[in-house]
Amino acid sequence: MKEKNMDVETQREAIEKVKGSGDIHKRVVVTLSGSEVKDEVAKLLELKAQLGEDPGKGKFVLKCPKGTKDYNPEQMSIREGAFKTIIGCFKRHGAETIDTPVFELRETLKGKYGEDSKLIYDLQDQGGELLSLRYDLTVPFARYLAMNKITNIKRYHIAKVYRRDNPAMTRGRFREFYQCDFDIAGQYDAMIPDAECVKLVVEILTKLELGDFVVKVNHRKLLDGMFAACGVPDDKFRTICSSVDKLDKTFWDDVRSEMIDEKFLDPAAADRIGTYVKLKGGLDLIEALLTDEDLKKQKSAVEGLQDLKLLLKYCDLFGILDKVSFDLSLARGLDYYTGVIYEAVLQGFAHKPSAGSDEESVSVGSVAGGGRYDGLVGMFDPKGRKVPCVGVSIGIERVFSILESRAISSKVKTRTTDTEVFVVSAHNGLLEDRMKLCNELWNADIKTEQSYKKNPKSLSQFQYCESSGIPIAVIIGASELEKNIVKLRIVESREEMEVPREKMVDEIRSTLTKLSQQKTQNSSS
Amino acid sequence: MKEKNMDVETQREAIEKVKGSGDIHKRVVVTLSGSEVKDEVAKLLELKAQLGEDPGKGKFVLKCPKGTKDYNPEQMSIREGAFKTIIGCFKRHGAETIDTPVFELRETLKGKYGEDSKLIYDLQDQGGELLSLRYDLTVPFARYLAMNKITNIKRYHIAKVYRRDNPAMTRGRFREFYQCDFDIAGQYDAMIPDAECVKLVVEILTKLELGDFVVKVNHRKLLDGMFAACGVPDDKFRTICSSVDKLDKTFWDDVRSEMIDEKFLDPAAADRIGTYVKLKGGLDLIEALLTDEDLKKQKSAVEGLQDLKLLLKYCDLFGILDKVSFDLSLARGLDYYTGVIYEAVLQGFAHKPSAGSDEESVSVGSVAGGGRYDGLVGMFDPKGRKVPCVGVSIGIERVFSILESRAISSKVKTRTTDTEVFVVSAHNGLLEDRMKLCNELWNADIKTEQSYKKNPKSLSQFQYCESSGIPIAVIIGASELEKNIVKLRIVESREEMEVPREKMVDEIRSTLTKLSQQKTQNSSS
Repeated sequence: MKEKNMDVETQREAIEKVKGSGDIHKRVVVTLSGSEVKDEVAKLLELKAQLGEDPGKGKFVLKCPKGTKDYNPEQMSIREGAFKTIIGCFKRHGAETIDTPVFELRETLKGKYGEDSKLIYDLQDQGGELLSLRYDLTVPFARYLAMNKITNIKRYHIAKVYRRDNPAMTRGRFREFYQCDFDIAGQYDAMIPDAECVKLVVEILTKLELGDFVVKVNHRKLLDGMFAACGVPDDKFRTICSSVDKLDKTFWDDVRSEMIDEKFLDPAAADRIGTYVKLKGGLDLIEALLTDEDLKKQKSAVEGLQDLKLLLKYCDLFGILDKVSFDLSLARGLDYYTGVIYEAVLQGFAHKPSAGSDEESVSVGSVAGGGRYDGLVGMFDPKGRKVPCVGVSIGIERVFSILESRAISSKVKTRTTDTEVFVVSAHNGLLEDRMKLCNELWNADIKTEQSYKKNPKSLSQFQYCESSGIPIAVIIGASELEKNIVKLRIVESREEMEVPREKMVDEIRSTLTKLSQQKTQNSSS
Repeated sequence: MKEKNMDVETQREAIEKVKGSGDIHKRVVVTLSGSEVKDEVAKLLELKAQLGEDPGKGKFVLKCPKGTKDYNPEQMSIREGAFKTIIGCFKRHGAETIDTPVFELRETLKGKYGEDSKLIYDLQDQGGELLSLRYDLTVPFARYLAMNKITNIKRYHIAKVYRRDNPAMTRGRFREFYQCDFDIAGQYDAMIPDAECVKLVVEILTKLELGDFVVKVNHRKLLDGMFAACGVPDDKFRTICSSVDKLDKTFWDDVRSEMIDEKFLDPAAADRIGTYVKLKGGLDLIEALLTDEDLKKQKSAVEGLQDLKLLLKYCDLFGILDKVSFDLSLARGLDYYTGVIYEAVLQGFAHKPSAGSDEESVSVGSVAGGGRYDGLVGMFDPKGRKVPCVGVSIGIERVFSILESRAISSKVKTRTTDTEVFVVSAHNGLLEDRMKLCNELWNADIKTEQSYKKNPKSLSQFQYCESSGIPIAVIIGASELEKNIVKLRIVESREEMEVPREKMVDEIRSTLTKLSQQKTQNSSS
C-alpha cells in the first residue's frame, strides 16, 4: 500500500513537471539568454532521467528538494574559508551578532516584500500559529529591534533564507541560500553609517579576491523625484521602480514595453525615464543633475542628490571612490528601502544583455547589495516609533560558485580535516596498543586518527595519510613497543626517526611547527 | 479588512490556547514535577498577558513563534564559545563536515521516527514537491550517504532541527534547536568506532566544564533478547522499548501500568522486565548476565552482552571507564538504533523522580546521546546496500542554558565585539579627520569603531569604550592634528601617551599585545 502511494506521488509529480515544462519551452523561444537555456536544458534532462527510472516500479526519488543542495566536505571547507574572511571584516567594524528563528509568524512577513511575497514558503497549518520561512534576514532583524525596543545596534547575521524562486543552480541561484548581513541601526548623522557599509563591501570583495568589481549607488528619493519629474503618477512609483530594477538583466526596450503595455504608463513618461536611467558617473553627474531643470523642482530628488554627494565625499575619505559608480538604473527590488541603495557587481561576470554569447561570463554578477530602510522597524512598533537602519547583504552563494570553480580548476586538493597524526600499526595484533597511543595523543590535544579495523594493512594506512594530507604518521610494531619508542614518519618526505615514547608528544609538536613554517616559506617564495 | 483578520486570528489562537490549558491543568494535578509546574505557570501567564492586550484593538503579537527564541549578542557569544570547544573535539578526532538543506522531501523522513513522526513540521503544498523540516541530522546524513554512494566517512554536522514538541524553554527544550552530531560510517571491526564516540562525549563534556556526568550505555540487541526472555511477543518489542525509554522521567509503577493497560502486556512479563531494568553496573554485571539462565538462551542478548564487554574494555584503554555505566533501563526513543546505545547525563542535574522537589536540579539532565544504526542507510539505497553507522549527538541547548545561567550569576560582563580601538574626537568639527584615521586603522587590520554622529560628546565616547570593553581610545583634537600626533589612552587604566602619527599602528599593536599578556597573567595568578 505504501509502495503504491509512492508510485502515485512520483508519477503525479513527474507529470506536473512535464506539464510545467511546456511553459518553460515557450519562454525559451521568447526571451531566454544563453545561460538560462543551459539551465532549462538541465531541468529537462533531469525530468527525463526521472521518467526513465520507470515510475511503475515505485522507487522514490533520492534527491534534495528542488533548488537546494548538500555541501560535501570540500565545499564546506571553501565555504568556511569565505565565512571566516567575511566575519573578519564584520568584526573589524565592531559588529556583534544575533540569531533569529528560521520561521516567523506569517503576520510578521506580511506586507514587507511587495511583488516578491509570492515566493515565501509557508508551513502547513498543523494547529496553533501560522508560520512562514524567513525570506531575508532584514525583516526578522527589524522585528527583533521592535520587540526588544533596541534603538542602537551594529550587528551581523549569517544564516539561511528561503525563496520559492525559479532556481538556476549553475549560476548560484537557490531556493535555500545563505545571506551574510551587516546592519547599523540608530539615529545618526547623514551618510556616516551608509558610507561605512559601502566601505565594508569593498573590503570584503577585495579580501575574497574575486577580481575587479564596482559598487553601484543610487537613492530611492532621487528615483521618486525622477519619476515625479517624468510624469509618473504617485501610485505607480513602486511598480515602475520594479521595472527599472530589471535593467541589469533586460534591454531598455523590453523594460519600456513592460511599463507601457503592462503597467499602462504614458509612453512619453517612459521615454523620459529612459533618458535618465542611461546615466552613470560620479560627482560631476550629481552636480549636473542638481542643475537639471526638471529634477531641481522635485524636493525629493534634490535631497537624494545631496545625500549622494555627501556619500561620495565620505567614500573618498575612505579611499574607495574609484570603486563606486553613481548609476541611475539601479533600483533594487524590495519595497522597504527609503534612502541610499547600492549593489556590488563583479566586472568579469557582469551580465551584459547587449553582448549575449559567452555563457560562463554571465553566470554571476551582483554579489552584494543593500541600502537604507528607515521605516521598517516602525512597522512593527505598536506606537510606530522609527529606528533608522542601513545595511548590506553579501550574496555568498555566488561567491561560493566562483571560489569553488576556481578550486576545481586549480587542481590543488582542498584538505577537509585538520588531522595531524595517524597512528599506524606495522603488523597485526596491535589494536590495543594503537588505542592507548591514540588516547595519549588526544589527551595531549593532538589531532589524531587511526584505522577502525583490527588488523589494517600497512599500505592502506600510509595511503590514507597521503590521500587526506595528514602530515605525520606514528608507527608502532613489536620492536618499537619493546624498546618503548615510536617511529615518526613525515608523510610527504617519507623521512623517518625513532623517538622515545616519553618524548613523542614534544617531538610531534616541534615537527608540526617546522612543517608549517616550511609550508609558509614555500608559498611565499 | 486586514486589521479585522488579525483580530480574528489573535482571538482564535488565544481561545485555542486557553482551551488547551485545561488539559495542562489536569496534567499538573496528576504527574508534574516542580520545574514542569514552573513552565506551565509561565505559559498561563503568557496567555493572560496576551488576552490582557485587548484583542479588540487587533494588534498583532510581536513575538517569536512558540518554542523558538532569538539569541542576543551575549547569548551568541556564549553559544559560539561552546561550538568552538565542540568543533575542536570533533576535529581532534579527524572529522570533516557537511551540510544538508533544512527541509527534505516528505518521503525521505517517512517511516524513520516511529511514534515521534507526529512531531515533524510539514511545509504547505504550494505546488511541486511535498516537503518537511528535518527532525534530526541523522536521517539527512543517511540520505546523503545513499545518494552519493559513500561507504566511509567520519563527519560532524552542526545545524538546527525542528520538532513540534511541547516546549519547556526554561529547561532548554525548544521547537527549533541545534544539534551537534558526529558519526562514523563504514564497515569496521566491532566496537572500535563505537568506543571512540563514547570517548568523544567524555572529552566534550569535560572540556565544557559542566560538572560531573555519567555516560549510560546499553544495547538494542540485549534489550530485544531481554524482552524475548521475559515473554514479550516479537511485535511488541518496539512499543515496549518506548515505555522503558520513559524510565528516566517516570516511576517504574507508571511505566508498568502503561505496558499492561495501554500496550496489553502480560503483567508477569512486565514484572520480569521490572527486575532487569533496575540493574546497572560494569563488567561484573555483564559477566553475571552472561550466565543468567533466561538471557543466555537468547542469541541476541548474548551478542549484545559480548559487544558491551568489548566496549567497556576499549573504554578502559581510552581511560574513561570511570565515566561509563552499563544501565539496563536505557532504551532511547528512536526506531533506527540497532546496536550499542548511550546517553550522557549530568549528575548535578539528574532527574530523580523519587527525590521530587528541588526545581533547579531537575532542569537539565541528558546532554548527549546516540548509538549504532546499521540499517538506516540501506532504507534509502535502491538495492538495500547497508552502510553501518554509529554516532553521537550533543544536546547543545541544554548546555547553553547551563553556561548562560552561569554567566549571569558570575556577573562578569560578556564582551560581544572584538573592537580594539575607538577613535575619539576631542571637540566638534573633526568628523573628516576621524574618518581618515579609521580608514588608516581598518586598512592596517585593526578593529576600529567611531561615533556615527558628526559631533559626539567626549564623555559619551569614553563611556561607550568602557561599557563595551574596548581597550584603547585614539584621541584627536586640533593640537594633535597640528603636531601630527595622536593620543593613545588605555581605557581601563586611563593612562595616556602621545604617539607620532606614523608610529600609531605599531604602538597600538604592541599595546594590545601587552594588555592581553597582562590579562592572561592576572587570570592565571
